[in-house]
Amino acid sequence: MGHDPLTYAAAGVSLDAADAAVEAIRPHVARTTRPEVTGAFGGFSGLFALQTDRWRQPLLVTSCDGVGTKLEVARQLGQYDTVGQDLVAMVVDDLVVCGAEPLVFNDYIAVGALDVAAVERIVAGIADACVIAGCALVGGETAEHPGVLAPTHVDIAGFGVGIVERDDLLGPHRVRDGDDLVAMASTGLHSNGYSLARHVVGDLDLAADHGLAEPLGDALLRPTRIYVRDCLALSNQLDVHALCHVTGGGVPGNLPRVLPDGLGAVVDTATFSIPPIMRMIAERGPVEPAEMWRTFNMGAGMIAVVGDGAAAVDMLGDRGVDAWVCGRIIGTTTGVELVGFDGA
Amino acid sequence: MGHDPLTYAAAGVSLDAADAAVEAIRPHVARTTRPEVTGAFGGFSGLFALQTDRWRQPLLVTSCDGVGTKLEVARQLGQYDTVGQDLVAMVVDDLVVCGAEPLVFNDYIAVGALDVAAVERIVAGIADACVIAGCALVGGETAEHPGVLAPTHVDIAGFGVGIVERDDLLGPHRVRDGDDLVAMASTGLHSNGYSLARHVVGDLDLAADHGLAEPLGDALLRPTRIYVRDCLALSNQLDVHALCHVTGGGVPGNLPRVLPDGLGAVVDTATFSIPPIMRMIAERGPVEPAEMWRTFNMGAGMIAVVGDGAAAVDMLGDRGVDAWVCGRIIGTTTGVELVGFDGA
Repeated sequence: MGHDPLTYAAAGVSLDAADAAVEAIRPHVARTTRPEVTGAFGGFSGLFALQTDRWRQPLLVTSCDGVGTKLEVARQLGQYDTVGQDLVAMVVDDLVVCGAEPLVFNDYIAVGALDVAAVERIVAGIADACVIAGCALVGGETAEHPGVLAPTHVDIAGFGVGIVERDDLLGPHRVRDGDDLVAMASTGLHSNGYSLARHVVGDLDLAADHGLAEPLGDALLRPTRIYVRDCLALSNQLDVHALCHVTGGGVPGNLPRVLPDGLGAVVDTATFSIPPIMRMIAERGPVEPAEMWRTFNMGAGMIAVVGDGAAAVDMLGDRGVDAWVCGRIIGTTTGVELVGFDGA
Repeated sequence: MGHDPLTYAAAGVSLDAADAAVEAIRPHVARTTRPEVTGAFGGFSGLFALQTDRWRQPLLVTSCDGVGTKLEVARQLGQYDTVGQDLVAMVVDDLVVCGAEPLVFNDYIAVGALDVAAVERIVAGIADACVIAGCALVGGETAEHPGVLAPTHVDIAGFGVGIVERDDLLGPHRVRDGDDLVAMASTGLHSNGYSLARHVVGDLDLAADHGLAEPLGDALLRPTRIYVRDCLALSNQLDVHALCHVTGGGVPGNLPRVLPDGLGAVVDTATFSIPPIMRMIAERGPVEPAEMWRTFNMGAGMIAVVGDGAAAVDMLGDRGVDAWVCGRIIGTTTGVELVGFDGA
């Protein structure tokens, strides 16, 4: 055929761009470090020294998650600064529900074509969020999939490792009849339900407010709240029995995960301040209340199961987290009962 | 507008299919378990009890990787049984290069539309490979991205955690002038260079052999070898100084990661038995030898840096791993020098 020799770059993969991305990422990784991190950046793996004298019976806790099609909104707007926080939030708040302190984080970024600036913005957001959560970003992989993913396509996944003393493990085994459910305010949609949200409002002008107090794009991209430090402070100081991270499936999909056999939960939906973006989705869909509740967090991104709800609400308020008693654990039913639908 | 109320399912996300996938995955996860795994399947996170009395100064080791566009070959052939092994291999063999024993694994699967059978095949392969590597599959996320990914699109990423005693850490700090380089045979392309491989041979009939001893599709999909147990056995019994996992960038891209300042490596490329699929790619591209060497593993998926190469070759042979001395660490140069190009 007589054509020139082929190279990996000609096939769509640029190792030089990959090297440039690694250099762009380096300073962001550096500012997340902890004293326990050892080994050089760019090794085959991330290393973290465990202080064995800090724990008697430590449990390693791992979690892995993505941010779903919220990334598509970021892509439409060309704003990649905030999805990193979404990713870290989804992972570390799954770790803290068992009482674990997050130690390290890894990220996976898949792109059609490597846009070094976009990857740097994503990793900068991940690094900022790792600092908020107190964990070190110790590794990751950026993969270019030319011809398989569209050039501007981006997907991200995150993976975290935490640790908890076995005796301090939170969960259904601690939950008692009469416990209070304390809801912690979300910042909005967080990172769940975007396929439905985009189906309803995705074709609207993202720069206009459509009756919201902000541009629709801002409401859709608002970063997921990170509850780790608030949850750890709460469980250190008060009688916390379990924590429920309200993600895909909403309150009725996630609260069963903290219920022991024989106990149920009643949640008063009228106590929730439903974020304006969710009211907009419910009206425009229209989406019925039961479907809204099993898709979105409806204003509460984390629910603590505690002995004394009022004390938890006070303490969270002092930390700047809007919180309220949203329901109770009861022995006369099983499963999760939502009461007080307001017709939203 | 008078249309019916919208549901999450109508927006393309089926929570029922997600539940079915979880049930399909459950038995595969179960057979990877280890005594240290605690907590129920389906919790917010995976739990693993660390036996603190086994280690004095343990280092946690984490790694994250994908399998690149090899998945596109699996998609074309509708064969999802083997990519799980590729994924686990990429991750656990990055862990073992520092001497770490892999403990737990998490997977992330992103799909356009949830094909429960395909996801089950992928997870079954991951589980089989976790058993080979000796680690437990303790968590994962399957994400449906309707409208963003094509319905048949699949991407996967994996995350692993291992542990190593600080005094047993392998790496450049142990490497000495005169050390032997011992190559361990790969099974073929493993999971790197697929964008180039597919560019060259992707349009050919995958069912025909094109001069190979097997159908092209089989050669392209052959699972990545998992070296974990061989490497751990080698480092337990012999004087192993460092291990180099030969992935993206090939020998010249990865061997520098095990070189300390002031030492170099000479690799005799004539000692390699280059797999037929790579000879085919080099000829058909054409792809020049230097580009082949910095894209593919060229027949060696792992290289051990050891004091006594002959002993390592013997021991690996006894374990069924073809191995050979492929070069040496020398003090009179720096970087990696490839000699003996055979014009492949």
